Amino acid sequence: MSEDTQLTDTEDLQERLAEVQTLLARHKLVEGLVHRQEGPRHDLVEDIVHKQHLNALRAKLDPMHPADIAYILEALPLEERLIAWDLVKAERDGDILLEVSDAVRESLIESMARNELVAAAETLDADELADLAPDLPQGVIDDVFLSLPAEEREQLRAAMSFPEDSVGALMDFDMVTVREDVSLEVVLRYLRRFEELPDHTDQLFVVDRDEHLKGILPLNVLLVHDVEVEVHSLMKTDFIELEPSDLAEEAAKAFERYDLVSAPVVDSESRLIGRVTVNAVVDYIREEAESEQLAHAGLREEEDIFASVWDSVKNRWAWLAVNLVTAFIASRVIGAFEDSIQQLVALAALMPIVAGIGGNSGNQTITMIVRAIAMGQVQPDAMRRLLRKELGVATINGLLWGSLLGVAAWWLYGSAKLGMVMTAAMTLNLLLAASAGVGIPLLREKFGADPAIGGSVMITALTDSGGFFIFLGLATMFLM
Amino acid sequence: MSEDTQLTDTEDLQERLAEVQTLLARHKLVEGLVHRQEGPRHDLVEDIVHKQHLNALRAKLDPMHPADIAYILEALPLEERLIAWDLVKAERDGDILLEVSDAVRESLIESMARNELVAAAETLDADELADLAPDLPQGVIDDVFLSLPAEEREQLRAAMSFPEDSVGALMDFDMVTVREDVSLEVVLRYLRRFEELPDHTDQLFVVDRDEHLKGILPLNVLLVHDVEVEVHSLMKTDFIELEPSDLAEEAAKAFERYDLVSAPVVDSESRLIGRVTVNAVVDYIREEAESEQLAHAGLREEEDIFASVWDSVKNRWAWLAVNLVTAFIASRVIGAFEDSIQQLVALAALMPIVAGIGGNSGNQTITMIVRAIAMGQVQPDAMRRLLRKELGVATINGLLWGSLLGVAAWWLYGSAKLGMVMTAAMTLNLLLAASAGVGIPLLREKFGADPAIGGSVMITALTDSGGFFIFLGLATMFLM
Repeated sequence: MSEDTQLTDTEDLQERLAEVQTLLARHKLVEGLVHRQEGPRHDLVEDIVHKQHLNALRAKLDPMHPADIAYILEALPLEERLIAWDLVKAERDGDILLEVSDAVRESLIESMARNELVAAAETLDADELADLAPDLPQGVIDDVFLSLPAEEREQLRAAMSFPEDSVGALMDFDMVTVREDVSLEVVLRYLRRFEELPDHTDQLFVVDRDEHLKGILPLNVLLVHDVEVEVHSLMKTDFIELEPSDLAEEAAKAFERYDLVSAPVVDSESRLIGRVTVNAVVDYIREEAESEQLAHAGLREEEDIFASVWDSVKNRWAWLAVNLVTAFIASRVIGAFEDSIQQLVALAALMPIVAGIGGNSGNQTITMIVRAIAMGQVQPDAMRRLLRKELGVATINGLLWGSLLGVAAWWLYGSAKLGMVMTAAMTLNLLLAASAGVGIPLLREKFGADPAIGGSVMITALTDSGGFFIFLGLATMFLM
Repeated sequence: MSEDTQLTDTEDLQERLAEVQTLLARHKLVEGLVHRQEGPRHDLVEDIVHKQHLNALRAKLDPMHPADIAYILEALPLEERLIAWDLVKAERDGDILLEVSDAVRESLIESMARNELVAAAETLDADELADLAPDLPQGVIDDVFLSLPAEEREQLRAAMSFPEDSVGALMDFDMVTVREDVSLEVVLRYLRRFEELPDHTDQLFVVDRDEHLKGILPLNVLLVHDVEVEVHSLMKTDFIELEPSDLAEEAAKAFERYDLVSAPVVDSESRLIGRVTVNAVVDYIREEAESEQLAHAGLREEEDIFASVWDSVKNRWAWLAVNLVTAFIASRVIGAFEDSIQQLVALAALMPIVAGIGGNSGNQTITMIVRAIAMGQVQPDAMRRLLRKELGVATINGLLWGSLLGVAAWWLYGSAKLGMVMTAAMTLNLLLAASAGVGIPLLREKFGADPAIGGSVMITALTDSGGFFIFLGLATMFLM
């Protein structure tokens, strides 16, 4: 972060956004007037006013932090966004591209010429470049690659080779290393040769001449000890070591458990190759939470709020298609019982209740089980316990709510037998929901799939079709 | 973190959990044998074996980090959990209680005597105590309160007074302050008087004699400059200042945007009263994401995976009750059209499709809108755009999927008119879903409610009842 950057809290940020929008609106107004004149002689006064607004806007944007500019760009419709983007100083393009959401990044990159993109990319570190690379045209990446010094080129190649959810993708290369046989005095003198230490340097990494990691020296420790002491007598040798192929999720858990600010990344021979810092972990945690939230509603990716209708349709169609198929199957289950419904039309009104409550209850179970699996606390023995518990909960809920509804059905339609079928169907569907809520995530885990994905759709499909089948089936057996 | 604590990655942790479980199982086996003998003469050999298992278990637990012990306690059923808990050294009880989940904390606290609780609480800092306080018996809090030195008592009183989702609740009091008119030399000498700097000390706070915050001095800067330089010439004066009443969410956003490790908290007169560190922010973000996930399935709180059936029923009943009411209303809507269904039983089979797809589509819209509102990027002008866009998406999806289903209905039931009613009903219900998906979170925000809460239930209720009404209503008008 450069020295002259303003930091603002969210409220201020929203005010600035409003100011930017006002300036853009004025600019647009003037532009509209100029265009309407059409004649060969543009009004000079208006042209100057025009420029003034853009200059005022530039003056607003210039001192802002890249993350804040990203925030403002995201909040602007495409046309205004590109006007503001043009005004931002070129040397900050790279940092801002890193901060904006994927959808907005795409729109900004599309507006840039190849040489602008190369220039922007060249301002970034290897690990940042790797984050940006999937969105850049291949030609730009090739150009940047050739312009890098050999060491950074190697780093970039390494960083780009790791899958998105691995430690390798979170890693950066900005670390400070020291030797174990020197005194703190020497370390402090060495540090003074830096212009500024890398962000999030809370510890120095102690390595031997082959880069093997021997220990870590927290700044907290460095600063409180006598300068005569040697590094090896102070360094900690029990610390978390990550490998680039570790799951990012595991690293995030370690950061949470042990309150880390940075952690070393080593290769299979314990040679230090990078570090992960807490800011990368925070971004990862937030993104995970968000993509889970989106996935829950069947949204494939974050939508730029100004995305076109067509882009939105594409983002959402897969989920709707899946649900249409499951709804169609449930509909055919009902179709099979049309005779019974014709004889007792009350069934049509009551059946969605049985299906709906089953879906809700099943989703509660599956949420609990997926979380328990994610915590890694579920041993096979515990699983039998959990299933017993969920079946118990389902039985109680089924009898409780089922009886209530049974009485309501009896009262509404004057048939005690209909009420009993309702109660029985509710209980059976909740038991089905509980079994599926425990079983689906377990089976997915067994076959190596993510237990969290798609479980909600599957269980709803099952409790819908199952609920209709159980209720209409019981009704056909006992009421017809 | 004490020097002799082992840190482990998650895989190791799961292995340790398995080892602990094995030891507990053996212990239980031996205990079973001893009890079965019942006689006056316990078999001495078995008694020793018994003790050996517990000693082995203690030896496993002793070097573990409090967070790891917490993890293991959470994964054990109540009986085994309390055996393990008894073996943990008393002076670590406080730290472990801080780490376990709420439900497990309750079970541990219940098993402890008052004096044990007081002793455990006294090992904690004021800000940690404040986190634990809501779960402690009032008597224990009173005792601890009296035992604290005046300054900490004041801190505890302050920390306990802030609502859970405020910066005050995240804040701690472990900060290092310096004066601006001293040289770095003096600062370094001052730091060497500490035994260890507080965790997450990435910067020193520069204050005047009345504790007014004048600037911050990052260690990164301190370490690279000549020791003759004075603090005021190096300190940064543009930094994020939090107030205890700020929302924790806002603080979290600032940490994310600016990649902070710590940030000062000041009172209304700019006097430094505490700091927030990134580990508290990480915990907050993770907890928020989790409680959102739980809320989405209508779970009031995290369930201890070994909670009783009865506790689980209580945790889940409210949501089921709400859904039962909305399902019942939808059922009455259907009931109003029983004549039409009797005449054309195909309606019963087709109506859940119209309702279901409306619910899915509405949930997609509401997820997008809630996220856009949470980012603070939605201005009134943007809102009109968003509504237009969502209505556009709904129209396309309605015509697309509606036609598909219309054709299917035509083919299944041989009635082109039924197919057209299906298409029209789908389109109208998706338009209803889109309007509600934009409108519900906006209205909630307008009236000061959290736009994220309960939106999904409301929209599903609306698209269910609305879908049935639209489809059966159109059918009654055009097909009867």
